[in-house]
Amino acid sequence: MDENGPQTPEETLDAEIKSFFDSAPPLRNIENISESLKNFIEINSSPAGSRSARKVVCVTSGGTTVPLEQRCVRYIDNFSSGHRGAASTEYFLKAGYSVIFLYRTKTCQPYCSLLPDDPFLECFEFTCDSGIQVRQSYSEAVKSAISEHHAAVADGTLLKLPFTTIFEYLQMLHLIGTSLRSLGPHALFYLAAAVSDFYVPWESMAEHKIQSGSGPLDMRLAQVPKMLSVLRSEWAPTAYCISFKLETDVKILLEKADAALRKYKMHMVIANELSTRKEEVTLVTENEKIHVRRDPKLVGDEVENHIVKHIVEKHSTYINVFDH
Amino acid sequence: MDENGPQTPEETLDAEIKSFFDSAPPLRNIENISESLKNFIEINSSPAGSRSARKVVCVTSGGTTVPLEQRCVRYIDNFSSGHRGAASTEYFLKAGYSVIFLYRTKTCQPYCSLLPDDPFLECFEFTCDSGIQVRQSYSEAVKSAISEHHAAVADGTLLKLPFTTIFEYLQMLHLIGTSLRSLGPHALFYLAAAVSDFYVPWESMAEHKIQSGSGPLDMRLAQVPKMLSVLRSEWAPTAYCISFKLETDVKILLEKADAALRKYKMHMVIANELSTRKEEVTLVTENEKIHVRRDPKLVGDEVENHIVKHIVEKHSTYINVFDH
Repeated sequence: MDENGPQTPEETLDAEIKSFFDSAPPLRNIENISESLKNFIEINSSPAGSRSARKVVCVTSGGTTVPLEQRCVRYIDNFSSGHRGAASTEYFLKAGYSVIFLYRTKTCQPYCSLLPDDPFLECFEFTCDSGIQVRQSYSEAVKSAISEHHAAVADGTLLKLPFTTIFEYLQMLHLIGTSLRSLGPHALFYLAAAVSDFYVPWESMAEHKIQSGSGPLDMRLAQVPKMLSVLRSEWAPTAYCISFKLETDVKILLEKADAALRKYKMHMVIANELSTRKEEVTLVTENEKIHVRRDPKLVGDEVENHIVKHIVEKHSTYINVFDH
Repeated sequence: MDENGPQTPEETLDAEIKSFFDSAPPLRNIENISESLKNFIEINSSPAGSRSARKVVCVTSGGTTVPLEQRCVRYIDNFSSGHRGAASTEYFLKAGYSVIFLYRTKTCQPYCSLLPDDPFLECFEFTCDSGIQVRQSYSEAVKSAISEHHAAVADGTLLKLPFTTIFEYLQMLHLIGTSLRSLGPHALFYLAAAVSDFYVPWESMAEHKIQSGSGPLDMRLAQVPKMLSVLRSEWAPTAYCISFKLETDVKILLEKADAALRKYKMHMVIANELSTRKEEVTLVTENEKIHVRRDPKLVGDEVENHIVKHIVEKHSTYINVFDH
C-alpha cells in the first residue's frame, strides 16, 4: 500500500471488500436464508417473551473452498473436519445459548461425534422381517445423536446453515452479522471455520476447465480481504467476537494470535496447533493467556467443554459491563 | 522433451512415474488393503469353483485431492459427487460382475442415490417410546439402500476401498491393477474418478502452513504423470480399459476423447460434458462413436444403465476374441 497515495488503509480494505462482494456469484436461496434468520432472531430476542435477553452464538465450522474455474471442476479447499465447531455447539446449547451453526456441507454435525465415518451405512442393519434396525454397538450413539440433534432444531435453539465456497461463507456471515446486531452484546461470534486466505476473483477466473498437457501450471491467487475488521466495526459492533488461529508451527503460534487480536480488535483469539488441537489450546485476550487442556483421565472429556466454560464466563462479564 | 536427448518418451514417463511413487507418502493400511484384495480375487476367480471366469470390474469414483502442504491444511480438490461411479456399480452388479469400488471418502455410495444429502440426520426420527424409526417419506429408499448395499458387501461381490489424495489413489490403482492381471481379459477398468492433472511433489512441498499477509500467492504445480499408459502396458495388459474425459467446453470434447483413446491405448473413452453429463455421453472406441442418452420418459431411468449395457456387450466380445 502506498502511504502517500490518496487512500487510507481503511479505505483500501473497504474497496477490497466491496470488490470481493461485487464480484461474488449471487447467493442461492438468499430469501430462505434471510427468512430463517429473521424467525430465529425473533424467537430468541422477543423482549416481552420468556426468552428475553437470550444469548445467541454464531458458530462457524469446517473449511471454505475457492473455485479455480467458473464452471467449477477444480478448487482449493481448507482442511477441517468441523469437529471443533460441532462439539462447541453442543456445549453452547447446554450452557443455554441459542446457536446459529454456519457449517461446511458434509462436515461434523452436533451430537454426532461418536458415530463412524458413514453412519448411514455403518449403523443400521436389515432384519429378516425386512425392517431396519440400529446395530447393537451403535445403539446409544445413534439414539442420542438423533434425539438431541432433532430436539435442538425443533425447539428453535439450533439453526443450521450450510456453505461450500468462500463466496457463500462470507455472504452468509455478512447476513448473520447484520441480523445479530439487534441483540447487542448478547450476540457472540465463535469463528472456528477454516477460511481461505487466498482466492481467484470470480471475474478473472477461467470460464472453462484448465487444460493440462502443456507443462506445469502457474497460478496467482489474490488475498481474501480480512472481513473480521468489518464484522467488528460495522456488521455487529457490540457483539463479543472470538476468532481462531491455527498453525502447524508452534513457534509462531502465540505471536500470530496476539497480532490477530490487536489487528482485528477481537475480544479473544483461540490459538491452536494442528497436531495437538484436540488436547489443548490457548485463549488469548488483551490481558490474559489462558492455557486450556482436556482432562485425559476423564472419559469423554473434550477440550471444547473447557473452552466454552471460559467463554460463557467472559461473555457474561462483557454483557454486565455493557448493561451497567 | 528433447528428441535428441538420451531418453525416449517412454523412458521419460517411466522416470516420472518412478519419481511420483518414490516421493509419495507411504500408503496407510497397505497390509489390510492387500489382504482384502487377495481374498476378493480368490473368491472371484477360483478356477474349480462355481464362480469361475467371473467378470470383475474396478470402478473408480470421486475426485482426488492434491495436498499443498505436508502437514495438510490446504489442498486442491477435483469436483465430483461420485454419482457416476456409484450408479454404474449398481448396474455392473446387476449384470453379474463383481466390483472393486475405489471411491473418494464421503462421495456417493451404491444404492444410495435416492437418499438426501445427510441421510443419517434426515431419514430417521425419534419415537415417543425412545426408539429410532425411518421417516415415512424415506421408507423405501432407506430399505433398499441398506439391504442391497449390505447384501453385495456380505456376499463378496462388492469390495469398497476409500481414498482421499492423488498419492493414495494412484498407489491403490497400482495394487488393484497388478492384482487383477491374473484375471486376464475378464478384468475391466472403469475409471470414472476425477483425477488431478497437477500436483506438488511431496518433497518440494512446504512443511508448514503457507503464510498469508505478504501479497498474492504464486504456485507452480507439476503435471501428474499419466498412469493410464502403464496400467495398459504393465499393470494389467490384457484387461479391458475404459477412461473418462470430462470437459466444460463441448467444442473440444470429442477431439480430446479421441486423442486420449489413441495416446493411452484405451479400449473406450467415455466423453461427457459437465452440464449435460447426467443426460447423455458418447462412448468413443476405435471404430465407433456411440451416443447414449437416458430416456426422460422412463421414470428413474439413468444414463449409467445404458452405458453399462453397451460395455457388457463390448467386454463379452473382447473376452470371446481373446479366448479363441
